Amino acid sequence: VRRYRKGPPISISEVGEFALIARILARLGSTPSVLLGPGDDAAVLAAPDGRAVLSVDLLVAGQHFDPAWSSAVDVGWRAAAANFADVAAMGARPTALLVGLAAPPDTAVAWVEGLAAGLAAACTAVGAAVVGGDVVASATLTVAVTAVGDLAGRPPVTRTGARPEDRVLVAGRLGWAAAGLAVLRAGDPVASRHPLLTAAHRRPDVRYDAAAILARHATAMVDVSDGLVADLGHIATGSGVGLELTAATLPIDAPVAAAGQELATDPAAWVAGGGDDHAFAATVPAGSVPTVRSAVSRLTPPCPLVEIGRVVVDDGLVWTDRQPPGPSGHEHFG
Amino acid sequence: VRRYRKGPPISISEVGEFALIARILARLGSTPSVLLGPGDDAAVLAAPDGRAVLSVDLLVAGQHFDPAWSSAVDVGWRAAAANFADVAAMGARPTALLVGLAAPPDTAVAWVEGLAAGLAAACTAVGAAVVGGDVVASATLTVAVTAVGDLAGRPPVTRTGARPEDRVLVAGRLGWAAAGLAVLRAGDPVASRHPLLTAAHRRPDVRYDAAAILARHATAMVDVSDGLVADLGHIATGSGVGLELTAATLPIDAPVAAAGQELATDPAAWVAGGGDDHAFAATVPAGSVPTVRSAVSRLTPPCPLVEIGRVVVDDGLVWTDRQPPGPSGHEHFG
Repeated sequence: VRRYRKGPPISISEVGEFALIARILARLGSTPSVLLGPGDDAAVLAAPDGRAVLSVDLLVAGQHFDPAWSSAVDVGWRAAAANFADVAAMGARPTALLVGLAAPPDTAVAWVEGLAAGLAAACTAVGAAVVGGDVVASATLTVAVTAVGDLAGRPPVTRTGARPEDRVLVAGRLGWAAAGLAVLRAGDPVASRHPLLTAAHRRPDVRYDAAAILARHATAMVDVSDGLVADLGHIATGSGVGLELTAATLPIDAPVAAAGQELATDPAAWVAGGGDDHAFAATVPAGSVPTVRSAVSRLTPPCPLVEIGRVVVDDGLVWTDRQPPGPSGHEHFG
Repeated sequence: VRRYRKGPPISISEVGEFALIARILARLGSTPSVLLGPGDDAAVLAAPDGRAVLSVDLLVAGQHFDPAWSSAVDVGWRAAAANFADVAAMGARPTALLVGLAAPPDTAVAWVEGLAAGLAAACTAVGAAVVGGDVVASATLTVAVTAVGDLAGRPPVTRTGARPEDRVLVAGRLGWAAAGLAVLRAGDPVASRHPLLTAAHRRPDVRYDAAAILARHATAMVDVSDGLVADLGHIATGSGVGLELTAATLPIDAPVAAAGQELATDPAAWVAGGGDDHAFAATVPAGSVPTVRSAVSRLTPPCPLVEIGRVVVDDGLVWTDRQPPGPSGHEHFG
């Protein structure tokens, strides 16, 4: 490896596949669940209760992240966190990631090292590890992440168990990442005036701890990735029930409200339609709500928790006051 | 969905994400190992012995497959088989796949349905199922496949256990897929004269049954994906040993020889350097070789098995007769 030189940054085609993989591995950690880590044909991961929870997501440059707005570390963090949120939404503890990277040959080695560092940081935050991967050449920078989780003997929390009179709870931030994307799109100096929102877009703070509390009581749960309204729709459809919701209960946090004012946008659209914060929405029996509230209130740092409605017999989503603005869901080819 | 119309084939942007996913799911099967299949935030898969074997591969159009030469069904089959081979090389039985698809919005729905059918066929061949996936838009058609396997209580067969005096065995075809790619590149009428080779490139016949036999005795094993010489190098490096090999023992099967003659190419380069057949190379204690030979000889259809050398103390690969032609490995950014 040449350490000192002029000219552009060292590209991945210059160092070659095997040296690149060595540089990636140097940035990754491990955990006791990793029985055999990267470097062989496949990894071996502990699945203590005899089941593995599995989810895959693809992130495409220009589509799911913009390298101009998100550093490589940010992209790694987001890719890992988004997938861990899916695992946590089943009531499982994230244990591992597998990461496929397709990258143009002129991609800077430093970018890939940053991606690995971001993945590793998101893993450390939840006690997981990267156990395997693949690196290939492509015209389009793409990150494929598979997350694995452990249910510790509990049944998975699906989208299908909501029952009439359950309450609808949401834990975690709503609208921060979407507002962050909006101010990034507006460019500086707007973006620089909203550092909390841009940070929320770049590195969502997924409340796995709140998901674990909800999971112990929830009849159904999702992570909010398509947007709150769309993901609540998934619960309603999956469970064959309706949801009676109150738009006025949706929290419009001060940073989100400020961005709405600056961009002359109704911030409720971000709260109801934005997904990248990976909040957790769950239906919980009415009698369990106080227990959930109490447990979530003891979390450090504090975690927002709101009750936004209840499950009803009739199909669909009904708003008791007004329908929030914004798209009702995210169609990737729409 | 419009059934009758003129004009180009229906694209995935026309049907939309959710309808596309429904069409994919309609082509997939399930198995008793699938405790919760596609449709929720994550899948739940049985991991009966408390461990999961995991591997990920990316296939990029134009890089790992050419849509002009491989149908969508072929691509699905290959993507699944390549990854199942990694799992089988650990001594595990493949149980599940997760599939991420990044596709241009004008991709034909029929192509994606074909991909799903190919994945499903490869799954059925080995008793596995697709348990989850993701579909996103991208300028570059990319398939990300994660395979999962079950070790059934046995230790994994890594690359690190080869011991001096072990014998080096290879089960499965060598050079067929590489020769198939060469005749496809030569175009018709050459390609059409070598249907066995083009079929081997498009839908490799991975001998999971032979891998399972080898795994019971092997001290080290790999699937041949980078090329035989390169992958044997991984065993030598991983185990801290050398391999003494005899080029004359490498089988040059009649179809491979015929393609070599037609293209004026030394077919030994395909045998020693080609990877896409996913043969299994293993080191086995000398005393176990007869048992392995006997068990493999009873497989239906017949499976090639050759002994090509032995493990020695000194590092590196040594050829007793001559070094085979061709590249020593596959550098994805080289």
